[in-house]
Amino acid sequence: MSGRLFVIGTGPGNPDQMTPEALAAVSEATVFFGYGPYLDRLSLRPDQTRQASDNREELDRAGAALRAASKGSVVCVVSGGDPGVFAMAAAVCEAIDNGPDEWRDIDLVILPGITAMLAVAARVGAPLGHDFCAISLSDNLKPWATIEKRLRAAAEGGFVIALYNPISKARPWQLGKAFELLRGHLPETVPVIFGRAAGRPDERISVQPLGAADAATADMATCVIIGSVETRVIGRNGKADIVYTPRFSLGGAGD
Amino acid sequence: MSGRLFVIGTGPGNPDQMTPEALAAVSEATVFFGYGPYLDRLSLRPDQTRQASDNREELDRAGAALRAASKGSVVCVVSGGDPGVFAMAAAVCEAIDNGPDEWRDIDLVILPGITAMLAVAARVGAPLGHDFCAISLSDNLKPWATIEKRLRAAAEGGFVIALYNPISKARPWQLGKAFELLRGHLPETVPVIFGRAAGRPDERISVQPLGAADAATADMATCVIIGSVETRVIGRNGKADIVYTPRFSLGGAGD
Repeated sequence: MSGRLFVIGTGPGNPDQMTPEALAAVSEATVFFGYGPYLDRLSLRPDQTRQASDNREELDRAGAALRAASKGSVVCVVSGGDPGVFAMAAAVCEAIDNGPDEWRDIDLVILPGITAMLAVAARVGAPLGHDFCAISLSDNLKPWATIEKRLRAAAEGGFVIALYNPISKARPWQLGKAFELLRGHLPETVPVIFGRAAGRPDERISVQPLGAADAATADMATCVIIGSVETRVIGRNGKADIVYTPRFSLGGAGD
Repeated sequence: MSGRLFVIGTGPGNPDQMTPEALAAVSEATVFFGYGPYLDRLSLRPDQTRQASDNREELDRAGAALRAASKGSVVCVVSGGDPGVFAMAAAVCEAIDNGPDEWRDIDLVILPGITAMLAVAARVGAPLGHDFCAISLSDNLKPWATIEKRLRAAAEGGFVIALYNPISKARPWQLGKAFELLRGHLPETVPVIFGRAAGRPDERISVQPLGAADAATADMATCVIIGSVETRVIGRNGKADIVYTPRFSLGGAGD
């Protein structure tokens, strides 16, 4: 008998940004798999068990969750943010694709969540108000040359760029290199938003012009949003600046 | 005395996908502005008033909401999905940018929501599991040439592409034209997801290969997601196919 596998997102960490739908899945499931700090965001009952694992073991974790579900358990795989954006949903699908046939019979229910770029954008205004892209800056799973190609395509196309996984101990130089590349395609005045832990008590938001953007501002919990040539900054007395990208567009860089 | 202006998103329409944070804003506000069908999703009290307007009057609506807030009201501007993605947050920021100084003193609180592409992606698997972009296909606010340039940049860069505002009575040919352009850059087998009203009772999801993708499948309530060359489809017996984009990448089209 095949069980059920939920894949949910907690949102960026503010409990008030987690959907009722995801909370209902948490209530229904009995076994939880995820990166420890994400599982810590849930209030589990004594009859619910958790299998925490390291953040880099996505595929193993997906396999373990699918095995438990194929034995009949109601399982919940927990991501931060939205599970479909650089997170566990793709790992679970990949495991099903390469796994035993019976995993395809599992009732797979993926539930969306608030992904980091949306939470960060809301804190500063509306930088994603027009065409934008999301790029993972991690070169663990793709060549750095591919990342450079995409940054270039995005800047030349006039997209606002949201960068996930901007930096880590093992990947210290990539964000600085990305800023360097983008300075060759975009004006120095384009605003760069560093949004850390949006909506959480340890939130830290900083807006810097691309010309002076300091990669050291980011850590693993930061989502970086780089404006397009059309992104604007509104100054306010005694209040944080507003950053937004107008709904209309004249075409952006490259025209 | 300046009031407060909330800008919220209801998510795609399933009440269980609206965040507690947005619901709390609805409870606090007394005057509501928005497109009628989005306001209809809220359960308002008798002491709360609503100002419904047409979907194409964003800037007027933003101005009216800001005027009410600057007189001291607690105002709520309501978008579908996420207010920061092709929705009201950018219109409110634009109105502040061009409006009287006192509008900058208003306590502006933008709250994120589940945007359509995330809800649609979750229903089919994880098509946004790797680098992706979001493009509004409406040429009301930007030249069609800009849209073509961005579609080309996205396809050549290997991005999965989410299309918002794909079609309307006044814009009947743009989606077909976009498919035609993309067929020149991507294999005919690339999956195209038409996700209508994700999570609502009238939901309709359809997956078609790019070579045969029929623009007439979409309506105004549809978000269209076009895979990259790396997006995969998993067949299942008696269950809908799973569509996902692997977390790793070899670089996509153009390499």
